[in-house]
This record gives sequence, C-alpha cells and structure tokens, in this order.
Amino acid sequence: MNSKLSEFLSTVAKKVDDYIFSNIKGQPEELYEASLHIIRSGGKRVRPAILMASGLIFTNNEEDLIPFAASVELIHTFTLIHDDIMDKDEYRRGVKTVHTIWGEPIAITAGDLLFAKAFEIITNDDVRKRIDASRLAWAAHELSKATATVAEGQALDMSFEKRKWVTLNEYLKMVYMKTGALLEASAKIGGIIAGASPENVRLLGEYASKIGIAFQIRDDYLGLYGREEVIGKAVFNDIRRGKKTFFISLAYQRGDDELKALLDKLLGNQSAPREELEKLAMKMESAGIKKEAEDYMEKLMGEAIEAISSLKNTLNNEYIEILKELAIFIVKREK
Amino acid sequence: MNSKLSEFLSTVAKKVDDYIFSNIKGQPEELYEASLHIIRSGGKRVRPAILMASGLIFTNNEEDLIPFAASVELIHTFTLIHDDIMDKDEYRRGVKTVHTIWGEPIAITAGDLLFAKAFEIITNDDVRKRIDASRLAWAAHELSKATATVAEGQALDMSFEKRKWVTLNEYLKMVYMKTGALLEASAKIGGIIAGASPENVRLLGEYASKIGIAFQIRDDYLGLYGREEVIGKAVFNDIRRGKKTFFISLAYQRGDDELKALLDKLLGNQSAPREELEKLAMKMESAGIKKEAEDYMEKLMGEAIEAISSLKNTLNNEYIEILKELAIFIVKREK
Repeated sequence: MNSKLSEFLSTVAKKVDDYIFSNIKGQPEELYEASLHIIRSGGKRVRPAILMASGLIFTNNEEDLIPFAASVELIHTFTLIHDDIMDKDEYRRGVKTVHTIWGEPIAITAGDLLFAKAFEIITNDDVRKRIDASRLAWAAHELSKATATVAEGQALDMSFEKRKWVTLNEYLKMVYMKTGALLEASAKIGGIIAGASPENVRLLGEYASKIGIAFQIRDDYLGLYGREEVIGKAVFNDIRRGKKTFFISLAYQRGDDELKALLDKLLGNQSAPREELEKLAMKMESAGIKKEAEDYMEKLMGEAIEAISSLKNTLNNEYIEILKELAIFIVKREK
Repeated sequence: MNSKLSEFLSTVAKKVDDYIFSNIKGQPEELYEASLHIIRSGGKRVRPAILMASGLIFTNNEEDLIPFAASVELIHTFTLIHDDIMDKDEYRRGVKTVHTIWGEPIAITAGDLLFAKAFEIITNDDVRKRIDASRLAWAAHELSKATATVAEGQALDMSFEKRKWVTLNEYLKMVYMKTGALLEASAKIGGIIAGASPENVRLLGEYASKIGIAFQIRDDYLGLYGREEVIGKAVFNDIRRGKKTFFISLAYQRGDDELKALLDKLLGNQSAPREELEKLAMKMESAGIKKEAEDYMEKLMGEAIEAISSLKNTLNNEYIEILKELAIFIVKREK
C-alpha cells in the first residue's frame, strides 16, 4: 500500500475510534460491550476514510466530519453484527461474534443500538450547532437510504441461496446494494458536510459505489486465487458454502458443460476435496473467467478514478490522490 | 372511549396507514411483505395519534406532520418484530409473528428495513423542501435518541430476567425506557415540526412519557385483574412467564412472608394452577398493592394532564382535550 494512503488510513482510524469510544457509552454495560466488541476487534475503517477524504477535498474543517465518519462505521458494524446472527458465523476478525458470546437477543439489540446511535451522534446538539441544518438533513437522508438499501441487498442475497445460480447482472446489483450503497453514502456525506456542489457530491458517490463493487469482486477473487497464508482464511470457502460469487455467475453463464458439471458437484459441498477445488479454479482460469474478473475490476477502478478526476472547485487535491490510491489498493490487494 | 378521541384515533390511523402503504414499497417483495405484516394486522396507532395531536395544538398544517407520524409507527413496529424474535413469541395481534412465518433472518432484516425507512421518510426530498431544516434535524435527534433508549431498555429488561425481583424504581426506569421514551419523542416531534417553543416541546414530552409509564402499569394490572373475554388473552400469563411487573416489584418490596412465599412458588412456573394464581391476585389486593397501582396511575395521569394544561400560545385547544381524554383512556381501559 502507498505510504500516504496507509498513513491516512491509520490517522482516520485513530480519530474515529477515539470519537466512538468517547461517545458511545451508557448502560446496561453488557449491551455497550456487545455493541463495541466488533469495533474493538479491528477493521480498516475504510468507510470513515472515504468519508473524511471526500470531505477534505473541499474543506479544511476536519472536526466537522468526524461524527459523520463515526456514524458510517457504526452502521457498517451494526450490519455485521446482524449478518453474523443470520449466517450463524462464529468468528469475525479472529474473535468470536457478538451472538456467540452474548447470545442472539443481546446481539440483535446491540445492532439496533448502534443503528440508533449512528443517527443520534450526527444530530446531537453540538453537531446541530456547527453544521448547516439543510446539509445535515441531506446527509441523514443519504445514510438512511443507504441503510435501507443494505437491508434490501441482504434479503436479495438470502433469496439467491435458494437458487442454483444468478446472472452476472443480478450478482452486480446485489453487491452494489450490500457493499456499494454504504460506501457511496460515505463519500457523498463527506462532500455534503464539506459544502460540495450537488454535481461534486454525485461524482464522489459514483467513485465510491464503483470501488465498493470492485472490493467485493476482489474478495471473491481472493477466495479462489488468494494465498491462505496472506489472507488469513481458507480459500475455496465460498465454493464450499455455495456462495453466489462473480465467478459462479460467469461460470454458469459462459462455461462449458464440463465446468458446469464440476461446479454442480462442488458448489455448496462442505466436504469438497481440495484437489477438485483447485481443478475448478484452474478450469475457470483457462475458460477466461479469472481474466474477465481482473478486467472488470480494472474497468471499475478506471471509472472510479475518472469520476473523482472530474471534481470541480476542489481545495485540497492531495485527498483526490489518496482516493485514487485507495481505488488502486482495493483492486490490487492480496488480503 | 370518548367519541371525539375515538374518531381522532381512527382518522389518524387511516391517514398514517395510507402514507405507510403508499411509501414503504420496494424489492425484494418478500422483505416488504414481512416488514408490513404487523402493521397490516392492526394496532391503534397511539404513537402517531400523540404526534399528530401534539402538533395540531400549534399548527393547522396536518400534511407536514404525517411522515413523522408514520416514522414513529415504523420505529415502534421494528421494535415489535425484533422483540418477538428475542421472546420467541409465535403470535402478536392474533396473527403469526414475522419470524414464525418468514424465519429469523428475514425478520431481523425486516426490522432493520423499517428502522432505516423511518429515517428515510422524514428526510426525503419532499420533506426537506417543506420543513424547516433545523426543526427536522432536531426531530431526527429526538427519534434516534428515543430508539437508542428503547434498545437500552430492552437490554435492561433482559437483565431483569436473571434476577428474582427488581425494585419499583428499577421497574419504572425500565418501563420509561421501553415504552415512555418513544411516546415522549412522538409528542415532542409533533411539537417540534409544528413550530412549538422549546418549553412547550418539553411539556409535551413530559405528558407523553407519563402516560407511557401509566400505559405499561395498566397492562400489568389487566394481566392480573383483567377479564379474559375483554382483553382477548389469558390473565396471569405475566406471572407464569416470570415477568417483572409493577406488582411483582411491590409485592417483594412490601409484601408479608406469606405473599412472598406464594410468589416464589408461582412466578415463572408455567404450570401454576389457576386457583393459586387467583389467590395470589387476591392477596396482592388485600395487601393494598392493587390500590397502590391504581393510585400510581392516577398520579401519572394527573401529572400528564397538568403538563399539557400548562402549554402556552396554543392555537387549537381541542387537541389538548383529545390528549387529556387519551390520558384518561389509558388509565381506565379494560383491554
């Protein structure tokens, strides 16, 4: 990772975490512990970073952006806590999930609390004194709309589980909803609070929704072609769990009969043997699907960079560079 | 029920339901069906009614209040859907609960969607054009703060389950959090959007938080002394399920050894015989606890009425009368 980007990410993470841990406090203690558990366990704070960089392109007033950066991380975390319950996942970021430690009722409530706190911290007395009220209401609208879209995307993803395969367009729509929409809102809110024009806000959103989709395709890619010792989790898990990834859509849409037969045999098969899975990954590569995924991510990255290169009346162009580096990092990352 | 109050409740219910069913639409259809299921199944729309009446005291502009009235009902419904999952309840309002029909993952997501939509509808382009932005942001703050309080109250209530009994003060605090806070926010938001002064907004909130607590005590009361054919559900269910009600707190705090021993035997005992439960209810009555509950509700009702009688610069005093009738109804209702 580019050193300026890496420095920016850690600076934002520190400031946003400080804000969250000083402001998200209360009783019952158990509920707050459960709510903050996943935040304490790590994470890169990508959404806060996109929000802050998007805002800092247009303002020097970093302080005003922090509560909003914290709020998108709270929304993201609430969706993780609820997703883990639905998927019955036992671990996330190397620690036990909230429902595994505290039980489902507290985990559901912990997610609900973070959701409420996300809106509470961006509308509290202090923020309402400092931020133009129309901008604040607009930002709250982007955040709530994106959160509704994430819920719709989650339901769409669940509906995919009942199907053998989904088209590439269906896959891309779902990925936009589950991952792209909140990144899009993060970038837009940064611009909105910094006073950017509607057209600039739109461009920031376009940038972030594209890298959101690319991020998920890269995830799918590493789940097939990543190196286990680098990514820190087993490859082929997506196949064993029957997940409808970018690769599965393309393989069923364009693969030959042999590839489809192999997929039928392995997809959702928890005890699929490793040699067969490796054969599947190679077959996808020779069918040109790996290359197509790479090309698609490159295309998204290019469009994202083009969008932020079109911003007008910018103040601090070094943050445009940081967002460009972030787009490159997302598509090239090895973990 | 007073006929003006009853007419007002049905008028509000119709307008708010129309708004909800025209505005809460989308894909996947299954998710929206699940989200709206409990709203379709009935309910008095008490929170929207309090919001509308509170606003109409100060404005003739009913249209502006409707999205906010819908939003408090969406928040209320989302908490019901999530509570039913946590309590593993199979029925609500005479119909199967959301998770019973669609499963837990869809039920969790349906609640999350309503939560997001509650904020989306009060910040959409149309509302942002019509409502003063500072008032809107203030209203969003009251709504998010109350929702966070409901989550805290839910966790507090769960922590009570592990204890044999809780003090009356602990009980009252929990009831304020689970029921009073959202009613309080509903009344305040009505005033805020109608342009009421901060002091008037505070008084509206005081009114509604008091009747919220009284509402829950009346619920506890009917669970012991209600007539099954009127309330439409079994009495003594709270005792059998071990619920920490107003009566349980007072009985352990002030009852004699015989009453406490009887409680120890019956509380949380799913197969407690009816004669014993009736004996318990009578013992509580002769120990003065029934009377104390009646007095406490009267006191809350009086304070609530006093609060709204102190409103200044009002425009339509007939809505103050409606709120007074509502306070009386809540304390006197037989179901």
